[in-house]
Amino acid sequence: MPLLSTPVPALSLTDADNHFVAKLRQKIDQKTKPLGALGQLEDLALQVARIQRNDVVSFHKPQMLVFAADHGIAEEGVSAFPQAVTQQMVANMLAGGAAVNVFARQHGFAMTVVDAGVAAELPAHPQLLRCKIALGTRNCVWTTAMTAAQASAALETGAHIADALPGNVLALGEMGIANTSSAALIFALLCGVPIADAAGRGTGLNDAQLEAKIKKLERARIRHAACTEPLDVLAAVGGFEIAMMVGAMLHAASQRRLLLIDGFIASAAALLATRIAPHAKDYMVFCHVGSEHGHRLMLHDMGVTPLLDIGLRLGEGTGALLAWPLVQSAGKFLNEMASFDSAGVSGKS
Amino acid sequence: MPLLSTPVPALSLTDADNHFVAKLRQKIDQKTKPLGALGQLEDLALQVARIQRNDVVSFHKPQMLVFAADHGIAEEGVSAFPQAVTQQMVANMLAGGAAVNVFARQHGFAMTVVDAGVAAELPAHPQLLRCKIALGTRNCVWTTAMTAAQASAALETGAHIADALPGNVLALGEMGIANTSSAALIFALLCGVPIADAAGRGTGLNDAQLEAKIKKLERARIRHAACTEPLDVLAAVGGFEIAMMVGAMLHAASQRRLLLIDGFIASAAALLATRIAPHAKDYMVFCHVGSEHGHRLMLHDMGVTPLLDIGLRLGEGTGALLAWPLVQSAGKFLNEMASFDSAGVSGKS
Repeated sequence: MPLLSTPVPALSLTDADNHFVAKLRQKIDQKTKPLGALGQLEDLALQVARIQRNDVVSFHKPQMLVFAADHGIAEEGVSAFPQAVTQQMVANMLAGGAAVNVFARQHGFAMTVVDAGVAAELPAHPQLLRCKIALGTRNCVWTTAMTAAQASAALETGAHIADALPGNVLALGEMGIANTSSAALIFALLCGVPIADAAGRGTGLNDAQLEAKIKKLERARIRHAACTEPLDVLAAVGGFEIAMMVGAMLHAASQRRLLLIDGFIASAAALLATRIAPHAKDYMVFCHVGSEHGHRLMLHDMGVTPLLDIGLRLGEGTGALLAWPLVQSAGKFLNEMASFDSAGVSGKS
Repeated sequence: MPLLSTPVPALSLTDADNHFVAKLRQKIDQKTKPLGALGQLEDLALQVARIQRNDVVSFHKPQMLVFAADHGIAEEGVSAFPQAVTQQMVANMLAGGAAVNVFARQHGFAMTVVDAGVAAELPAHPQLLRCKIALGTRNCVWTTAMTAAQASAALETGAHIADALPGNVLALGEMGIANTSSAALIFALLCGVPIADAAGRGTGLNDAQLEAKIKKLERARIRHAACTEPLDVLAAVGGFEIAMMVGAMLHAASQRRLLLIDGFIASAAALLATRIAPHAKDYMVFCHVGSEHGHRLMLHDMGVTPLLDIGLRLGEGTGALLAWPLVQSAGKFLNEMASFDSAGVSGKS
C-alpha cells in the first residue's frame, strides 16, 4: 500500500505549533464577542487554521465522495430494505435525485459515487468510479466478510481515489443495505461495547426485527471475538465501502485536507482510521450524531462532539453536507470579524 | 396599534388544512429515504410548506433585523461589559465587523439595525433605523422598565418596521448590555421559574458576579411579582429591543413570513409573542439553544426543539443565521428529491 504506508506518521498537528496555537487563540479571543461566545465554532476555526497552517483560512473545490457496497450479512434479514436498493440508490444518486445530491448542489460540492462492491454490475457513468472489489462481502455471521488481500486492496483504492480528487475538503458518505450491521460489529469488536448497545433499527426495523438483528450480530461478534486489531476487525466484519473510506480518510488527512465525517457508518470508518493512525482525528469534523442507537455511544467513546443533533439517520453523506455551512462560518468569523481594537469596542469591565 | 390588533386572530395554521397536511406528509414519506430519516428537517419542511400553503416552497429576500437598546438595570452591575458597548457594537455592526454581519453576508441576508432605545444619540447611517423610544429603559429593580405607553409604542414600531421590509423570511436578533437580565425576568414572571434557574452568566460573569446578579434580579422579580399578563410583564421588566421584536414577530407572522428566532433574548420575545397570540409559534423556527442558563429551560417550557446546540451565547442574530442553511435544506429536499416511484427504488421489504 504505497499511498498509505508513508504518510501516516506525519499526521500529527501537535508538533511544534504551540506558538501558532497561542497566536490563533489570541486572534479568536480579540474578536468583538464575549470570550468563547461562538461555542463549537471557535474550536472548529482553531482546527481548520491548524490544518491549513494559516490564521486566514480558505476552502476550495470541496468533494462529496459516496462509497457504495453490498454486505453478505444482508441475507440474514438484518435490514428493512431489500439488497437491490443499494444499486437502485446508486442509480438515483447518479441521476441527481437522492438527498445527498440535493445538499451537494446546495453547497457546491462536486459529487463522486464509487462502486466499492455493489452486488451487481453497474453501467458506466461520468460520476461513477467503478472500483468493485467483489460483488458484495461474504456473510460475516459465518466467515470473514473479506480476505486480508481484499481489505488491503480496498484501503489502497480508497487512498488512490482521494489522491486523485482536487480540493482541501473531503466529505465522506456511503450507501449499502445492511451496513449499520457492519458498523455496529466494528464498534463492538474495537471498543468492547455490547451488541445490544451498538446496534439499532437502521433504515426502520420494528421491535421483533431489531431483536432478530441483535441475535444475528451477536453470533457474528462471538465468531470474530478474537479480532481486536483494526485491520483484522475490518476484514472480519467490515464492508468494502467502509474499507475504502478508511483508506480515503487516512490519505486525505496525510495531505492535510479537512475531513467531513457523516453518520454511523462513516464514523465507524473514522474509528478504524483513528485506531490505525490516532492523529487522523485531528483532521476530522464529526458533522452529526444520528438517531441510530450506537452512533452517540461511538462518538462519546472517541471523545468527539458532533455539530448537529437533529435526528438524522439517512447516511449517504447528508449529515456531512448539512453541517458544512457551520464549518464555513467558522472560517469566515476567523477571517472577517473585527477585533475589539479595530472596532473601538470596550472589553470586560 | 392598528397593525397589531387585527391580524393576530388570523394566525392559526390549523384551520382546515388537514387534507393539505396529509398530502405533504405523503410527499415527504415518498422521498427516496427511510421514513423520518431526515429528522427535524422533515418537520421543518412541513412547517414551511404550511406557512407558504404550497408543497413547493421558496424563500426570497431574507431579512436580518437587529434591535438594539439599553437597560436601566445595567447600573446594578449585572453585566460583565460596560453599557457603552451597546452603542459601540451598533457602530461595529454598521461598519460590517460584527459576527452577525459575517454570517448575514455568508447567507445573503439584508441587514438592518434598529435603534430601539440605545442610551446615546446615534449618527445617521443607511442601515440604521432610528426609532428610539427613550435613552434606555428605567431600572426595573426600582420601578417598571417602561410605561405602558412606551411598551405600546415599541410594539407598534416593531410591527411597522417588519411591515416595511420585503421578503418572506425574517431573522430577529438583538444587542443590549444587560438584556439577559431582562430575558430572565420575563421568563421568571411568565412561567414561574425561579430566578436562579432563569438567570445565567450572560457575557461572562464569574461566580460571585452571577450570585450578585441573581440577588438583584430576585429583588426585581419580587417587586413585579403581581405581573403575569404578557403586556404587563413586558412593561415591567422588558426592554425596548424586546418589545419591538415582539411587535415585529406578531406582524410578520400575520403576513405568513417565516420567523428565525435567535438566542435567549429573542426567545424571550418569542415567549411574549406566543403568550399574546399562541399561533404565532407556528411561524417560528427556534434556531438554537445557547449555553445561557435558562434558554434551554425556556425552550423546553415552550415545547419547542431547537435546531442547533453548539454552545453559542452571542446573540445579535448569529444563531438564527447559522441555522438558516438547515431551513433551506428542508425546502430543497421537499422540492428536489426524487420519490421511490420516480427513481425506481424499492420500498421496505
